[in-house]
Amino acid sequence: EEPPVSLAECAACHGADGVGRDEEIPNLAGQHERYLYTQLQAFKSGKRPHKEMRYESRHLSDQEMQALARYYAQLAR
Amino acid sequence: EEPPVSLAECAACHGADGVGRDEEIPNLAGQHERYLYTQLQAFKSGKRPHKEMRYESRHLSDQEMQALARYYAQLAR
Repeated sequence: EEPPVSLAECAACHGADGVGRDEEIPNLAGQHERYLYTQLQAFKSGKRPHKEMRYESRHLSDQEMQALARYYAQLAR
Repeated sequence: EEPPVSLAECAACHGADGVGRDEEIPNLAGQHERYLYTQLQAFKSGKRPHKEMRYESRHLSDQEMQALARYYAQLAR
């Protein structure tokens, strides 16, 4: 399955391999798909307040959020 | 290293093995220690709003938060 187009932006901090690039940035590899999806929604809506993530998620469509969640969830933990 | 006393409460949802017990609950095994610690602080202070996690973290001392973060971070992802 092709990685989602918006992966590049995420990979800058979370890595294409899903390993956070610094200690404050969570690993996403093998995380629960549903959890990843609900966090992206929460960042976009502001329900989960986070400056950078709100900025990064502001243009994501629901379909892109699902694709990103699926991509990172299926990476080996 | 003895697992932290408060682990039992966390394990009910996150597992002693750090695998979330349902799709909405994040895996914690192998997560970045610093990230886990800052999230516990944010849940306790309310900076990261979350009903259950605020309840669970309300009595945690700073020292317990560090021990829990260290415990889950060192579990194999």
